[in-house]
Amino acid sequence: MISNLLEGKKGIIFGALNNLSIAWKVAEKAHEQGAEFVLTNVPVSIRMGTINELAEKTNSPVIPADATNVEDLENLTRKTMEHFGGKIDFILHSVAMSPNVRKKREYDNLDYNFLNKTLDISAISFHKMLQTAHKLDAINQWGSVVALSYVAAQRTLYGYNDMADAKALLESIARSFGYIYGREKKVRINTVSQSPTPTTAGSGVKGLDKLLDFSERMSPLGNADAEECADYVVTLFSDLTKKVTMQNLYHDGGFSSMGMSLRAMSQYEKSFEGSD
Amino acid sequence: MISNLLEGKKGIIFGALNNLSIAWKVAEKAHEQGAEFVLTNVPVSIRMGTINELAEKTNSPVIPADATNVEDLENLTRKTMEHFGGKIDFILHSVAMSPNVRKKREYDNLDYNFLNKTLDISAISFHKMLQTAHKLDAINQWGSVVALSYVAAQRTLYGYNDMADAKALLESIARSFGYIYGREKKVRINTVSQSPTPTTAGSGVKGLDKLLDFSERMSPLGNADAEECADYVVTLFSDLTKKVTMQNLYHDGGFSSMGMSLRAMSQYEKSFEGSD
Amino acid sequence: MISNLLEGKKGIIFGALNNLSIAWKVAEKAHEQGAEFVLTNVPVSIRMGTINELAEKTNSPVIPADATNVEDLENLTRKTMEHFGGKIDFILHSVAMSPNVRKKREYDNLDYNFLNKTLDISAISFHKMLQTAHKLDAINQWGSVVALSYVAAQRTLYGYNDMADAKALLESIARSFGYIYGREKKVRINTVSQSPTPTTAGSGVKGLDKLLDFSERMSPLGNADAEECADYVVTLFSDLTKKVTMQNLYHDGGFSSMGMSLRAMSQYEKSFEGSD
Amino acid sequence: MISNLLEGKKGIIFGALNNLSIAWKVAEKAHEQGAEFVLTNVPVSIRMGTINELAEKTNSPVIPADATNVEDLENLTRKTMEHFGGKIDFILHSVAMSPNVRKKREYDNLDYNFLNKTLDISAISFHKMLQTAHKLDAINQWGSVVALSYVAAQRTLYGYNDMADAKALLESIARSFGYIYGREKKVRINTVSQSPTPTTAGSGVKGLDKLLDFSERMSPLGNADAEECADYVVTLFSDLTKKVTMQNLYHDGGFSSMGMSLRAMSQYEKSFEGSD
Repeated sequence: MISNLLEGKKGIIFGALNNLSIAWKVAEKAHEQGAEFVLTNVPVSIRMGTINELAEKTNSPVIPADATNVEDLENLTRKTMEHFGGKIDFILHSVAMSPNVRKKREYDNLDYNFLNKTLDISAISFHKMLQTAHKLDAINQWGSVVALSYVAAQRTLYGYNDMADAKALLESIARSFGYIYGREKKVRINTVSQSPTPTTAGSGVKGLDKLLDFSERMSPLGNADAEECADYVVTLFSDLTKKVTMQNLYHDGGFSSMGMSLRAMSQYEKSFEGSD
Repeated sequence: MISNLLEGKKGIIFGALNNLSIAWKVAEKAHEQGAEFVLTNVPVSIRMGTINELAEKTNSPVIPADATNVEDLENLTRKTMEHFGGKIDFILHSVAMSPNVRKKREYDNLDYNFLNKTLDISAISFHKMLQTAHKLDAINQWGSVVALSYVAAQRTLYGYNDMADAKALLESIARSFGYIYGREKKVRINTVSQSPTPTTAGSGVKGLDKLLDFSERMSPLGNADAEECADYVVTLFSDLTKKVTMQNLYHDGGFSSMGMSLRAMSQYEKSFEGSD
Repeated sequence: MISNLLEGKKGIIFGALNNLSIAWKVAEKAHEQGAEFVLTNVPVSIRMGTINELAEKTNSPVIPADATNVEDLENLTRKTMEHFGGKIDFILHSVAMSPNVRKKREYDNLDYNFLNKTLDISAISFHKMLQTAHKLDAINQWGSVVALSYVAAQRTLYGYNDMADAKALLESIARSFGYIYGREKKVRINTVSQSPTPTTAGSGVKGLDKLLDFSERMSPLGNADAEECADYVVTLFSDLTKKVTMQNLYHDGGFSSMGMSLRAMSQYEKSFEGSD
Repeated sequence: MISNLLEGKKGIIFGALNNLSIAWKVAEKAHEQGAEFVLTNVPVSIRMGTINELAEKTNSPVIPADATNVEDLENLTRKTMEHFGGKIDFILHSVAMSPNVRKKREYDNLDYNFLNKTLDISAISFHKMLQTAHKLDAINQWGSVVALSYVAAQRTLYGYNDMADAKALLESIARSFGYIYGREKKVRINTVSQSPTPTTAGSGVKGLDKLLDFSERMSPLGNADAEECADYVVTLFSDLTKKVTMQNLYHDGGFSSMGMSLRAMSQYEKSFEGSD
């Protein structure tokens, strides 16, 4: 029904691995709304995933880039501008990985080279992407940039490990660069703090299924899924949200504003049954 | 260009006094996007303002109601449901007034009857509106309710007086009722924390012009105006933001995330010129 | 061991009902640290509780006052200044009551007269106390005022009802008046957001025992008890915290910064045992 | 007058360069309150500064350590435990440096090797320090760790550059490790968000003098100075704050809760005089 919210808009979408990815859903929804975009991911993810299927479906080029590599980002940005014959209007950053999580190094036993990688991939890559776009003057006035985050940036969840710190850094970069890019080019930068989502990347987090259950019962509207997240990101790319910037926006069915719900507590109480 | 974001949606809009009002702009934008709605305001504001002009333009009935009066709200809600032959999808609450501000009672010399009025008109009215809608089961599943707030709920601004406390209470009510209405009917409730806006109501705040200047220079994107606010509210009424609830959403050009901007500081520094 | 942190300081302590009360513990600890104070409570609580025992133990006068009644507060403040022959240095506000909670009116079925009472007793009383002290110039420079709050002001907990809104209003009043009293008299005003505490007042909250269990398991240091809260309040009354003002300070074993703990989740997981 | 708040407590204090340093003041105050501690800093700062004077005054050993070097931290921690013949009770982290700020690289032109250094020195060092202490089981139950932060972690201040991101990361590490260290050893970890302070390190920030003036006028109690900060940190090391953890505690005269003060606005308005 709604079909032209992003008409004429051009962008770059980072991080679509397969059809579970939030970035994948954003690409589909942005396409539906009339946007054109370049898809990008690190070469290994392009091989492992199915991005070419998405590229075909949305009629988009795929330009590989390692988001931690400034040269790659420059190449991506230049080629994108060549492809569109001009500047772009939006960027999605959906990039996160923690070698400490993968290698099961607990937070009190971090490997610091891994931590540097976590921060570089999951947070500093966002700065690199923005600095590159800014230097090449790649984004139109009133353009919009979104990165995906998680409530672990504000509140500790066991097992989320150094990704929590990476998300806090990511959100800070959004604010810091949001100020610069806003005052100079009217470009807005926000993070969307999404419900835990069973993507391929998310599934590395310890005990995700039980966390999803708890989160579902705590959130009055239930967890937000990847498709709903994509809908929301579309509004942030549209011209209807021009003055929203430097914000971390919770898209989580209300989880972030809950202390305790009746549904979660009723489940919790069952844990004591037959236990006295 | 965008023309059907609220197609088929029905609602109630509180608080359009004249064409400076944010509620007025929301009505215009919602109408553009295909929504139908009932306009309401307290009788004295209907007489003082020009709401009938808006009613005609948007082809909407005007049903007077004092938002602090539960009977009025019941009457309004019932008549609205009769008018549409069913439930509604959205409500805008843009209602605020402080007799202490009007009568120039400073915050350390409040009249407590006035304070009760400030809270009743500017915050408790929101609860009354929600409780009435809930009792009459007036809102469709996945409906959306928005109230307008201001950053004074989090940070003290001299001269904003007891309206700051009213906004804090308003935002709390949005969370508290957002939980209930979310879990039971999937209705979402949020507040939009808007830049200072030179509406007829806003102009009562002491030193508003200088505050607007400071706020404009502090905000990387400048202050958000009433029309931009209306655009944003439209996204919150649309189906693209279904899982956003219990949030206070800053629509302020970045002001809320700023500590000090170069532009504001450059102006501030001028105050010392020739002053040694 | 520590014995003179509040030497020479004089104050007023509101809200000691019996030896479960946080205010009671604050009185004991303040006395240990060399403070002198007046105890006060509403007459019915004085009759119901055992405040005279505390008065004797700490060698303090009891001056009854209804914290919602400005005349009572003026009388209390004047008599306190007479008693000490001068100004005071600290005030504790530990006053909260919700008729809606008592009468089991749910949040979507509030009685608005009850709501007004909840707000008057639990929040506006704090403004009345401060405005009275300010008008009578009753607090010394660098004096300190503390009110007790709860995380429900930020996050919804089912069953906490309109007390959540009252706490949000209370915290806003602390900020608003903190600005005024700070700039004019260097008096600081803060709220302490305490763990759920099994006081006589707290026991009215629905499902408190299970909430206490959950909160205990979520908080890395466990729930803070009334005595620990009193220790913390003592630091806030001391000269060591002179520049802390307009803050809401969590004293909760870490609860407010937790999203999910291993201990709480392990318990939660037990609820699914044998349930498939 | 107050003289035994830290009696019997042992600790490590990082970052005293000279008598302008907050760490220096903390050492003096902790000494006054009966604490014993080891002083540490990176060798170059030991040579540049006057830490030996402080060591003599407080009768403390100086053990050099680069806070980014895990081996150095292990050596420091072991030697400290040898010195005291057992575990310690508190740690102060007052370590921050940005090569990007020093080399005047603006935030949209960061050198990424410099950024890595900023994060390593100013934030990751805190994790290294905590992980080392945790592995060596160096901190007694109910011990207390404090790191110094700044409001730039939440709100962007022009010129503060990548230190803002470092502070956001630092505060996240405090929460993440606060959970682990709390649940396992009852050790609490907090950050103190201090007013801008004219230390030798702070003086590198662009336009600090005007920022100090603005901050002074915005804060109802004025800026907090290094000595007042030290007083506050002493309360956090004491047994009176045992249940405060994972918090970022503003010690800033109220700045963080202000939107606009009369004093700052009056000064700001002067900037327009004679300008029409």
